[in-house]
Amino acid sequence: MTNHPVKKLPTVGDLGEQGILDVILPLLDSSKAALGPGDDAGALAVSGAEVIVSVDTLVQNQDFRLVWGSGFEHKAFDIGWKSIAQNVSDINAMGGVPTGAVISLSLPQNTTIQWVRDFAKGVSAAVEGLGAQRLSIIGGDLGKASEISVTTTVFGECEFGKILRNGAKPGDRLAIAGRVGSAGAGLAILDSDKQWENWNRSVARIADSQCKPTPPLESGPRAAQAGASAMLDISDGLIRDASRLAKASAVNVNLKSAVLKKFASRLDPAATLLGIDPMSWILDGGEDFGLLATFPQDVNIPEEFTVIGEISAQAGRRALVKVDGHIVNGSRGFDHFPVAADR
Amino acid sequence: MTNHPVKKLPTVGDLGEQGILDVILPLLDSSKAALGPGDDAGALAVSGAEVIVSVDTLVQNQDFRLVWGSGFEHKAFDIGWKSIAQNVSDINAMGGVPTGAVISLSLPQNTTIQWVRDFAKGVSAAVEGLGAQRLSIIGGDLGKASEISVTTTVFGECEFGKILRNGAKPGDRLAIAGRVGSAGAGLAILDSDKQWENWNRSVARIADSQCKPTPPLESGPRAAQAGASAMLDISDGLIRDASRLAKASAVNVNLKSAVLKKFASRLDPAATLLGIDPMSWILDGGEDFGLLATFPQDVNIPEEFTVIGEISAQAGRRALVKVDGHIVNGSRGFDHFPVAADR
Repeated sequence: MTNHPVKKLPTVGDLGEQGILDVILPLLDSSKAALGPGDDAGALAVSGAEVIVSVDTLVQNQDFRLVWGSGFEHKAFDIGWKSIAQNVSDINAMGGVPTGAVISLSLPQNTTIQWVRDFAKGVSAAVEGLGAQRLSIIGGDLGKASEISVTTTVFGECEFGKILRNGAKPGDRLAIAGRVGSAGAGLAILDSDKQWENWNRSVARIADSQCKPTPPLESGPRAAQAGASAMLDISDGLIRDASRLAKASAVNVNLKSAVLKKFASRLDPAATLLGIDPMSWILDGGEDFGLLATFPQDVNIPEEFTVIGEISAQAGRRALVKVDGHIVNGSRGFDHFPVAADR
Repeated sequence: MTNHPVKKLPTVGDLGEQGILDVILPLLDSSKAALGPGDDAGALAVSGAEVIVSVDTLVQNQDFRLVWGSGFEHKAFDIGWKSIAQNVSDINAMGGVPTGAVISLSLPQNTTIQWVRDFAKGVSAAVEGLGAQRLSIIGGDLGKASEISVTTTVFGECEFGKILRNGAKPGDRLAIAGRVGSAGAGLAILDSDKQWENWNRSVARIADSQCKPTPPLESGPRAAQAGASAMLDISDGLIRDASRLAKASAVNVNLKSAVLKKFASRLDPAATLLGIDPMSWILDGGEDFGLLATFPQDVNIPEEFTVIGEISAQAGRRALVKVDGHIVNGSRGFDHFPVAADR
């Protein structure tokens, strides 16, 4: 080690477009792509008559901060991880299996090469760690911007048919798989005034679930195979996403707080630290990318799903979400462009 | 008309996420999608065993300015147009036909709804105007950012096989289809100190080719069907993209300036206005999205292609680009992260 404490780390501005690609591409697995990065377009092998597609963008200071209120520094690795996680979740929520992705990365000129390397490692780790074995990175785009922005488009196939939001019927049971509320609690911790150096391990683990969400990738196809009638992922909060399912299916959704409270107890370390009722995260916290699915009465619900309520007929003009029989406002939760009247 | 000169136009911040989507979605044609926007993922119908995919991002102040040096205001319509044009061009350059697209739009809170509406109209007009009849918009994402950013991912199919960059052989003829140099000349005009109110019609038309490029969408599949050996689109400049073809195919590319000068004469109005040699735009101007293709001697070159040179064997360690026998630096043209040494 040389001793140059103020030595400037190399940046994307120092390396040039091809130099940056030479750092990124060896870290990504493109071996299963019909044609990987390097030509005008990549190619995705398709075994059925349809490909399903989802796209999401992560923007600095909107979807993450480089340094949070708690002083916690958001790792490039985690941004790479989340860019894959939130998109494969959409494929999962249709009952599909992710088969490919393209990533467009916009970076400020002074972004370090180490940042880019860590980002690519996070992408690769998510593909592996979430169990997306069939997914290969088939292309991308690299450009300049004044803030970091990552747009990932993921492709997939649905062996057991597409499970939409509009298939729930009165009498169906409502169930969830995967985490709920953790990422919301994590967001509250990250942006709190509780400095990260003082977090205990339980709190740090909850914060980490905001940075590295883990959608339950096998549960989507399993729910489809079992016979789920409707499904979506909980990206903007349980109430808000349940409201979407209710509206699309023209039914009422009835949640039972007793079951949800069991999930809330896992968030007690964060709740205690911040003095917040953990049920707020269960009901309104997004970005865990758990699954919300409905199953007809005659279907065997896969064991990793927990029944949290039931579907009933829509009585009036609006599809409603109720908790223990009380109507809740379905537009709570996350909105990119919130309207004052909605809040 | 009421008379409120300072009346504030409604913005995306006033309308909410669903409200914005209600403006955009009716303007986009999703009728041919297997499943359009509204669920976790959209679905693309596929007739072959492969889908080709390309992604590109347009960022405010990098890829366009809301107001250029000339005072010209960049229209939202044109940003929508270009977001489609530059991506369908990549599909075209593989010899494919575009079949679907997803668009992720990141917007500042104060973007007007009229801007969003015009953007969507531009997307729709490009699909129609460029002749991408099979393309439907199958999904997207909407989020906040401090600058406008548009990432479009386009899908396509190659009926006549994928034409890559690496298939050129010594003896092949090199040909181009579509515009070359116009968008580069247009960029120079837009960002010049020649105020836009004073442009004549010829100059305005050249400026417009930067804002609304027109990739020759039928020529890609036609070249593939005819038997092109290699192809790519000219997105970063003729020399730079010819150099990519040379490198990928391990051949030398030999250009003849006499033919290229005929293309340059079309740019005379811009050249005269700015006092610039129009050949610089022909050689180094990008973003017209014309096609650069190589054809073996026994192939009938489609009539819209103009032969501009030929391929010869690579003699030394590096694949070279020559103009009239003189070696030129293949890394000229556009680089998102230019390295000083390259210039």
